Amino acid sequence: MNRSNAGAFDRSITSGADFLQLSVEDAPVRGLSDWLAGQLRLAISDGRLPIGSRLPATRVLAGELRVSRGVVTEAYQRLIEDGHVAGRGRAGTVVVAPIPVTAALPTAAATPIAAPPTDPTDATGPTDPTGPATADALFTAPGADVFDAMRAIPARIDLSPGMPDLGAFPRTAWLRAERSVLGALSAADFGYGDPRGTPALRLAVANWLARNRGIRADPEDVIVVAGVAQALGLIAQVLRDGGITEMAVEDPGSLGARQHLRHWRLDTPPIPVDAEGIRVDELRAQGAPAVLLTPAHQFPTGVVLAGERRRDLMRWVRVGGLIVEDDYDAEHRYDRPPVPALRSMLTEGICYAGSVSKLLAPALRLGWMLAPPKYRDALVEAKRFTDLGNAALPQLVLARLMESGDLERQLRFLRGRHRRRRDAMIAAIGAHLPGAVVHGAAAGLHVMVTFEAAGFASGGFASAGFASGRFTDADLAAEALARGVKVQPLSWHGQRPGPPGLVLGYAANTPTVTAEGIAILGDILRPRHRS
Amino acid sequence: MNRSNAGAFDRSITSGADFLQLSVEDAPVRGLSDWLAGQLRLAISDGRLPIGSRLPATRVLAGELRVSRGVVTEAYQRLIEDGHVAGRGRAGTVVVAPIPVTAALPTAAATPIAAPPTDPTDATGPTDPTGPATADALFTAPGADVFDAMRAIPARIDLSPGMPDLGAFPRTAWLRAERSVLGALSAADFGYGDPRGTPALRLAVANWLARNRGIRADPEDVIVVAGVAQALGLIAQVLRDGGITEMAVEDPGSLGARQHLRHWRLDTPPIPVDAEGIRVDELRAQGAPAVLLTPAHQFPTGVVLAGERRRDLMRWVRVGGLIVEDDYDAEHRYDRPPVPALRSMLTEGICYAGSVSKLLAPALRLGWMLAPPKYRDALVEAKRFTDLGNAALPQLVLARLMESGDLERQLRFLRGRHRRRRDAMIAAIGAHLPGAVVHGAAAGLHVMVTFEAAGFASGGFASAGFASGRFTDADLAAEALARGVKVQPLSWHGQRPGPPGLVLGYAANTPTVTAEGIAILGDILRPRHRS
Repeated sequence: MNRSNAGAFDRSITSGADFLQLSVEDAPVRGLSDWLAGQLRLAISDGRLPIGSRLPATRVLAGELRVSRGVVTEAYQRLIEDGHVAGRGRAGTVVVAPIPVTAALPTAAATPIAAPPTDPTDATGPTDPTGPATADALFTAPGADVFDAMRAIPARIDLSPGMPDLGAFPRTAWLRAERSVLGALSAADFGYGDPRGTPALRLAVANWLARNRGIRADPEDVIVVAGVAQALGLIAQVLRDGGITEMAVEDPGSLGARQHLRHWRLDTPPIPVDAEGIRVDELRAQGAPAVLLTPAHQFPTGVVLAGERRRDLMRWVRVGGLIVEDDYDAEHRYDRPPVPALRSMLTEGICYAGSVSKLLAPALRLGWMLAPPKYRDALVEAKRFTDLGNAALPQLVLARLMESGDLERQLRFLRGRHRRRRDAMIAAIGAHLPGAVVHGAAAGLHVMVTFEAAGFASGGFASAGFASGRFTDADLAAEALARGVKVQPLSWHGQRPGPPGLVLGYAANTPTVTAEGIAILGDILRPRHRS
Repeated sequence: MNRSNAGAFDRSITSGADFLQLSVEDAPVRGLSDWLAGQLRLAISDGRLPIGSRLPATRVLAGELRVSRGVVTEAYQRLIEDGHVAGRGRAGTVVVAPIPVTAALPTAAATPIAAPPTDPTDATGPTDPTGPATADALFTAPGADVFDAMRAIPARIDLSPGMPDLGAFPRTAWLRAERSVLGALSAADFGYGDPRGTPALRLAVANWLARNRGIRADPEDVIVVAGVAQALGLIAQVLRDGGITEMAVEDPGSLGARQHLRHWRLDTPPIPVDAEGIRVDELRAQGAPAVLLTPAHQFPTGVVLAGERRRDLMRWVRVGGLIVEDDYDAEHRYDRPPVPALRSMLTEGICYAGSVSKLLAPALRLGWMLAPPKYRDALVEAKRFTDLGNAALPQLVLARLMESGDLERQLRFLRGRHRRRRDAMIAAIGAHLPGAVVHGAAAGLHVMVTFEAAGFASGGFASAGFASGRFTDADLAAEALARGVKVQPLSWHGQRPGPPGLVLGYAANTPTVTAEGIAILGDILRPRHRS
């Protein structure tokens, strides 16, 4: 990191004591270095000093605390010795490894940092950590808790995919809708409800899907769920009860979705994805009775399912196949209207799932599924015995936002903002990652980048690194995290070997932050280019 | 123990107040028994009164404290009821079980009249209806959707149990808290979160349980769930994965809870409940590795688990038994403070579950469980793959209501209102259902009424009806529904034959509506009396 792109955390260099809320008056008379090292550890563990941030210069901090510079130097030395910070020459002293938050801090995320099971193809779930796990293990062998573990690690720049611009959450509109809902509710509305969800939201979702996804849905077929993740669990339970033991998935395809299906005891045979989407011939050859698809914007490649493949899939469904359509970010299409959902072509044989996670916020845990008539009753029963149905208030607030036009306004606003952020991401990749190939930028909230052999050759990237397999995308993600940048390695999402790559979210970050994060990736790769 | 070998603690007999450092000047003007019971608990928990020591004679302590002997007797009675001391005849009143240090809650418990179901013959459970249920089939053979079906039938008067006064939902306080939460949230708070729930609510729940249920809980052990129903599903999944195939249940006991356990493939062998609660000897004899209990206010009988039973259950847990404690309405206790939860006595081996369904509204779908350490990681994983955790906004609003005192104010308000409604229910039963026996009125939101043979005879009720078995409580409920009154037949909740009866909720209705509903029940039964 050089001065020009050091960014916001340069502040800590000039006002470290303030920023860290340190006051030497709290310190003991003796053992000042111990005290300071302890304070800095605390700041790293609670995220005030995220990974990648720079510690204040020793001279500056010593001056602010009115202690000798030796005290600060010694404290830094201790953190270096225990591996949490590293001297980076002119770049200063940088936080490189997380400190697990102890159980003594009740407000902190206690998920230990990554303790993944060893074999990524094993669906038995996470094993207990035997000790503090390393960031490397997180990337090379992601366990069932990998997303929790990633979230628990503070980092200065988060380029994880799947996140809209959360700062744009329409707080005022939400609160206004909630006030109006609370004023109109009858006492009975506060009681137990239909496990399928409130009639108002089921109607609003049917209307929303008609307007935005080309689907003509009967509100009776809408089941309100706690997000697509829950929908996957429900359909997996129902299929499993019906004797089905596998659901094919796209490859590459979402690691998280695969983990959910496996938790619910479905195997997930991989079907290759090419430039037109899933290979339906391979699906047919594989013989699975069901498949999970992301047709509008394949995750992670961003491919839009081609017309002939869609028609071929419909033929596959008509002879008994079941499609689970995860329409996770289809509304976010920038250059033309979104392609209609598969469910718009056929009702029987397609279980459609969507949510507000990418429209409003994942924290709302609110989504919907359209059950194929054949499975509807079983899905309602599975939902009933999961939680008796979603909470009523947020459902009614969302219904109002959908019916008032507020949600479409929000979507238009987000599309404009996200498009600018996408363009910034692509420009930064062009500037800092020569030879990297960008995929799937026409829609969604992320791009996929691959470092293919051809790319290395033409762009001059480290063929001695990636190409030989000695430096993997997991290594790149681990090193990026050590420098304060969260990214997902493409290898997380593939079940079969593929080119090294990254999945990079752009929607949640300003162009400046994105550019800075990509520049750091470039810094990591540049020496490998020279070697 | 007799006087001659009573040992050192004979001192307490002659100078109890001094020994215990008690001074009645510290006591409040009202509630002397509460105060004294609290002081004695403190003395037990901090070791001044170790296990095996004898409490001072009531006469002696009353004299020393210059209070009436009734005050002391009642304080001792509370300790007996919550299982910490036992009357030992001439040996006096002896400390028999420890109190965790923070569990110094004043407790309670008059013994409600019991409704021992007799005649253990058959344990057949509910069968699924094969077609659209008629009201009769609904009551005689309730299926998995019985509660949804009941809710869908309009009725003028709803005396179903389990519902607080929903009209009292604190809309203004909720909206105020939500505004303040929305104003304080960071963008990251709108993202995916810890599957265990937000740190703020987990801390608030731990504090709430300490204040209201005598439980000392580590927030790290709190898992926020979508109500007790979800908690049952999660624990059932985890047990089932561990090879456990049955969870014993109280009989009579909640039909809904039994349906949930069975959905998750656990058998539910019935264990009889008598006037002191579940028969622990029968539980032991039955041999199930786990049991679902409602110790504070048994559903539906309303029995409070007696002290000796509590101790016996703790012995059962210590040799490997697992208790799932459904604390569904314990805060609603009218004549004295609630008895502490079983979880206050032991952490390992007790999985505690509670919710806001009876405090605020079932429609919030918000509750908590305290995992036994052994099962914590597996329960977190089950929650993750159910819905990735509860929605964040309602959690944060609830946390604020709990920490601000608003929720405790709401509870005090509800207690007063519910008590008047309970009294109205009891008066109406006395006026319109002569011979009906009321059970479990000291707490909760419902009473159980039985029509026993003796009752029919002495009260003049239709022995030609109930007593001969030709007119069942399911018939009564069906006919009541036909006349616009929803009630639950007691037979729903029993797995083995028991006396005919009804479970009647009073909290959600005004005294006038309740009286009208009970009068209609009387109308239905009167002609049968004459016949």
